[in-house]
Amino acid sequence: MDIWRGFGSDNHAGVHPEVLAAIAEANVGHAHAYGDDPWTARAVRAVRAHVGDDAQVSFVFNGTGANTVGLAAVCRPWESVICAESAHIMTDECAAPEHIANVKLVPVPAPDGKLTPELVEPALTGFGFEHHSQPKVISVSNVSELGTVYTGRELRELADLAHSKGMLLHVDGARIANAAVATGGSILTLTREAGVDVLSLGGTKNGMLAGEAVVLFGSARTDDLAYVRKQSGQLSSKMRFIAAQFVAMFEGDLWRRNATNANTMARRLVEGALDKGVEIAFPVDANEVFALLPDDVIAELQDRFHFYAWEEGLAENRSLVRLVTSWDTTGVEVDDFVRAL
Amino acid sequence: MDIWRGFGSDNHAGVHPEVLAAIAEANVGHAHAYGDDPWTARAVRAVRAHVGDDAQVSFVFNGTGANTVGLAAVCRPWESVICAESAHIMTDECAAPEHIANVKLVPVPAPDGKLTPELVEPALTGFGFEHHSQPKVISVSNVSELGTVYTGRELRELADLAHSKGMLLHVDGARIANAAVATGGSILTLTREAGVDVLSLGGTKNGMLAGEAVVLFGSARTDDLAYVRKQSGQLSSKMRFIAAQFVAMFEGDLWRRNATNANTMARRLVEGALDKGVEIAFPVDANEVFALLPDDVIAELQDRFHFYAWEEGLAENRSLVRLVTSWDTTGVEVDDFVRAL
Amino acid sequence: MDIWRGFGSDNHAGVHPEVLAAIAEANVGHAHAYGDDPWTARAVRAVRAHVGDDAQVSFVFNGTGANTVGLAAVCRPWESVICAESAHIMTDECAAPEHIANVKLVPVPAPDGKLTPELVEPALTGFGFEHHSQPKVISVSNVSELGTVYTGRELRELADLAHSKGMLLHVDGARIANAAVATGGSILTLTREAGVDVLSLGGTKNGMLAGEAVVLFGSARTDDLAYVRKQSGQLSSKMRFIAAQFVAMFEGDLWRRNATNANTMARRLVEGALDKGVEIAFPVDANEVFALLPDDVIAELQDRFHFYAWEEGLAENRSLVRLVTSWDTTGVEVDDFVRAL
Amino acid sequence: MDIWRGFGSDNHAGVHPEVLAAIAEANVGHAHAYGDDPWTARAVRAVRAHVGDDAQVSFVFNGTGANTVGLAAVCRPWESVICAESAHIMTDECAAPEHIANVKLVPVPAPDGKLTPELVEPALTGFGFEHHSQPKVISVSNVSELGTVYTGRELRELADLAHSKGMLLHVDGARIANAAVATGGSILTLTREAGVDVLSLGGTKNGMLAGEAVVLFGSARTDDLAYVRKQSGQLSSKMRFIAAQFVAMFEGDLWRRNATNANTMARRLVEGALDKGVEIAFPVDANEVFALLPDDVIAELQDRFHFYAWEEGLAENRSLVRLVTSWDTTGVEVDDFVRAL
Repeated sequence: MDIWRGFGSDNHAGVHPEVLAAIAEANVGHAHAYGDDPWTARAVRAVRAHVGDDAQVSFVFNGTGANTVGLAAVCRPWESVICAESAHIMTDECAAPEHIANVKLVPVPAPDGKLTPELVEPALTGFGFEHHSQPKVISVSNVSELGTVYTGRELRELADLAHSKGMLLHVDGARIANAAVATGGSILTLTREAGVDVLSLGGTKNGMLAGEAVVLFGSARTDDLAYVRKQSGQLSSKMRFIAAQFVAMFEGDLWRRNATNANTMARRLVEGALDKGVEIAFPVDANEVFALLPDDVIAELQDRFHFYAWEEGLAENRSLVRLVTSWDTTGVEVDDFVRAL
Repeated sequence: MDIWRGFGSDNHAGVHPEVLAAIAEANVGHAHAYGDDPWTARAVRAVRAHVGDDAQVSFVFNGTGANTVGLAAVCRPWESVICAESAHIMTDECAAPEHIANVKLVPVPAPDGKLTPELVEPALTGFGFEHHSQPKVISVSNVSELGTVYTGRELRELADLAHSKGMLLHVDGARIANAAVATGGSILTLTREAGVDVLSLGGTKNGMLAGEAVVLFGSARTDDLAYVRKQSGQLSSKMRFIAAQFVAMFEGDLWRRNATNANTMARRLVEGALDKGVEIAFPVDANEVFALLPDDVIAELQDRFHFYAWEEGLAENRSLVRLVTSWDTTGVEVDDFVRAL
Repeated sequence: MDIWRGFGSDNHAGVHPEVLAAIAEANVGHAHAYGDDPWTARAVRAVRAHVGDDAQVSFVFNGTGANTVGLAAVCRPWESVICAESAHIMTDECAAPEHIANVKLVPVPAPDGKLTPELVEPALTGFGFEHHSQPKVISVSNVSELGTVYTGRELRELADLAHSKGMLLHVDGARIANAAVATGGSILTLTREAGVDVLSLGGTKNGMLAGEAVVLFGSARTDDLAYVRKQSGQLSSKMRFIAAQFVAMFEGDLWRRNATNANTMARRLVEGALDKGVEIAFPVDANEVFALLPDDVIAELQDRFHFYAWEEGLAENRSLVRLVTSWDTTGVEVDDFVRAL
Repeated sequence: MDIWRGFGSDNHAGVHPEVLAAIAEANVGHAHAYGDDPWTARAVRAVRAHVGDDAQVSFVFNGTGANTVGLAAVCRPWESVICAESAHIMTDECAAPEHIANVKLVPVPAPDGKLTPELVEPALTGFGFEHHSQPKVISVSNVSELGTVYTGRELRELADLAHSKGMLLHVDGARIANAAVATGGSILTLTREAGVDVLSLGGTKNGMLAGEAVVLFGSARTDDLAYVRKQSGQLSSKMRFIAAQFVAMFEGDLWRRNATNANTMARRLVEGALDKGVEIAFPVDANEVFALLPDDVIAELQDRFHFYAWEEGLAENRSLVRLVTSWDTTGVEVDDFVRAL
């Protein structure tokens, strides 16, 4: 089999060896199913060290699962979720939020992928009006889908706005580790301390095999979560093997090491590209680089480096491409790419 | 950590070493996400060797996922699924079939867990009558929830009944490997050759970490499946690691070796128990033993052997317990249990 | 156009002249839409005189609407409703409870159409168990689908059982007026005073054009009701014309006069039929008569009297038929039918 | 009771006397329920005279019902509906399209309430991509929510675009009669002849008590419609009384007389307002006038004329108000209002 590496997605990277070792280590004897096992208890403790001791932590299989379970736990079918037009929940989950989580999505234009109170406020209408779906959640992706990162302060402003309306703030944190590293802070700073109520805590993109966590804070915590997770098909029977991955990732600093590598490599790629005169479309805060490349070189580069075109024909003879670095991206690969530009 | 083993569930057993090795082997370089990778292609081929070359095979995370995705792919919201009162989809999936797959369930009493045409027929009413949900699927579990197994001929009778009404036959095959071994046949005999239209092909209970397959046959095959799977939150991003498990299980005969061990150990347990005068409640066709034990010994036995009470106070001073053997159950464990009786 | 009358259904009867007059009377000037009008306020008062001053009353279009809105207002998607196998919500609403109200239905055999604590209790399992849909509502039809009537005491026993489990009691009262007349009591006796939490209060079958009410009692009352009703498509824009019908029906005693006629005519029909040696299948408590008629006379009788066969071939050469009397059934019609027997 | 009239909504007007007479006329003898009666057959014929003899016509209670039933009949849960940001289905149906019809809505900015191919095309992406909800329907309101009207040619362009992508065109025709009159044409011109596939045919706003029709054209016709309507709670039991209203409206030209009056009065209002120097915000094609009025006169005018503020503070010291004329609006009322300006 042909072995290759590239900049297509952090989902293209494999499993970090320490994660695989933790799975193997958990593979001893029997364990109670569905999370009633010591690995799950340990993984919850490990995650709580990063989100607060009183957070409700529940493991699921994947990102769509985390988003739908988290939103369904706090919304009723006549409530709506305000999100960016480019939000993963709006464009890349095949209407799972609408049909599995039973929420209405209200998309808002967000030029650089990030919501602000100013962008959100026009959508906060119709409270108490039975004809209108009731705004209940502001949802942001951190890292955003355009590679930009919200600071704790920016999140706090959105949380304050949400709370002032009796609403909640949800963070799709598929790349929350990259955001935490990018802001020089911690996951805690970008979640609990910023007033976040519901978090989809990503693991898969940062070096796990499969696994995300739904984290509920404060008044968003609810016993309903268990039923929502089960009904949504997101309750793993042999949970210890999801949990073991979180132990490997969050008991020590593997989450940070992996994200730091990805972010550092993205920075290196940007600097190299800028040296070559390439235009970068959005601030590269974390591990995603959106660049405008000449149309006549894209195909050849893709053959070698496996990245995706994002939007064609944006500027004359140039298209927007997305380059994603991963926990396993090396400087050699980045330098090869820059040379190839 | 205390290491123990028992008869609580085949979900309590860990991952077979060959499965874990296959995961590790797949962990090299990058791979396209969401199933567009060589491991997935290879796993589909491996599964097709057991269900027919033209079957549509799609991998999901867990059993509830397989059942809901399979049923949603072939049903509309006004269609219903006839199942046994004891069916996993009726009692153990927290209404996921109703709310994620959007089907109505119509339960039918089935004393030994198995449906027959006679049991099903009274529920096949209201065709063409707009007030009545339209019967569309007969769903059976093979192995059934009471440990009994359908033969190919029994399935064929149900398939013929279904097809005569324009309906489909679904098999919840969380333990289809055990059923295949039990009937001395193959998975093909119990699915395609028996007229089955939709199969939830189990992997997890038979020694995998996490992974099941939705298999659609003949006219049930549909391009809609991809959207259903994604929307249901059952599309794994790093699919190669689900696929690698299926490669390990179905390219060779690991599926059969594991199920054979489980079934053999159940037989050994039954024979030992019968020698001790224990009453067995249902035919032990595969790897589940339902036994009536004296109430005053159950707690002590559970402490040592980790099994579940199923229904209390069924007979005077006795209760029904469920004992499940697994791919890793040993003769020593079974003999210990029998001695302890 | 051929004008006929018969015993097919109380839905076959037309609109009582007083109801039509009330609609015409409300047709003056403009009125605010969606219930913010004086007729609606007056109709709510009129209904409250029969269900208690603090009941929450909300008008909808039809019976399926009332049942789904009422159940959706008090249930979450992982909660279930225990009902009789023969319940209208189970057999005659095309899975609207499952897909519009988002509840799971758990049917229970009920030989004469009525639930009892003994019949319901086996279904009250799995509380707190995340795999199992959580029992939340016991739902009965009064009058039942087999023409039998629950007394206040029978309802109280079911309500006590429900409340002891943290559950609610729902009454599908499409024919609650007939039940109230049958028990010599009032609607209040069969609802609030019996511990009922959610009522579908029927109007259409008792002489209205179209209109039912959802009534919530005590802790079941909720501001969510407005959103549920709107989302379910059950909010009438020109609400005054639904409301006017309730004014006509419940400000005076029209509801009682209509139901009394229907019940009296059913009694007359039963007595006549018994005289002719016809076997009556269930106690005729209200306005539905289930009778076993010889197969060779049914078709001829149906031609003249427009009733439905209910179940064929129940006894040798006889089938079960349903005869329904209405607010407009006359003694002459009944006597004609009896003579024709 | 205080009798008033105003410009709040065509839902504030009552029932046209000819409609009420038709209801009374249908109130004779018994009739089969659920549409199996001669009035319904006659009403279907009457409607088909305006939409084509082979159109599938099905009556429902209200506008939300018509939209959800029509969309559910032609969409699967992973399909999406492109609509204007201001569309009634997006803003005024409390997420019924998402949760009752199971579609995803993708809103598109439309400055004057009308979609064009240019506005729609950017949303037509992701075909065949399992992560993306599949675009299936373009939905427009005619009359639009801002009072503008699509011509047959404009609809044809949208239909051609839809069909070129394998999609359908839906028209929310709550005010289709007003649109037909406005374009000097017929309902046929604005529906079947323009390539429309799914129509919500309005009746209530144009002088009926309650009633709309779902109309499916060509390949959109489907036997599923009956189940969708029943499950959605939109099947009236005493259907003859919905049908009789359609007979009154569409056998003759009542639909046209009513809409003509409303449109004419709106034109008169506009001309009067323009004379007074009032700025009109959108082209007044039918019976809705959006005007910018000084903030300090609005409350006083509302007291007398019962209209709604639409958006506040749009221009300095002025707000946008909506004035709607109805089938029963008189020239005297309009002139009074203009004088009061």
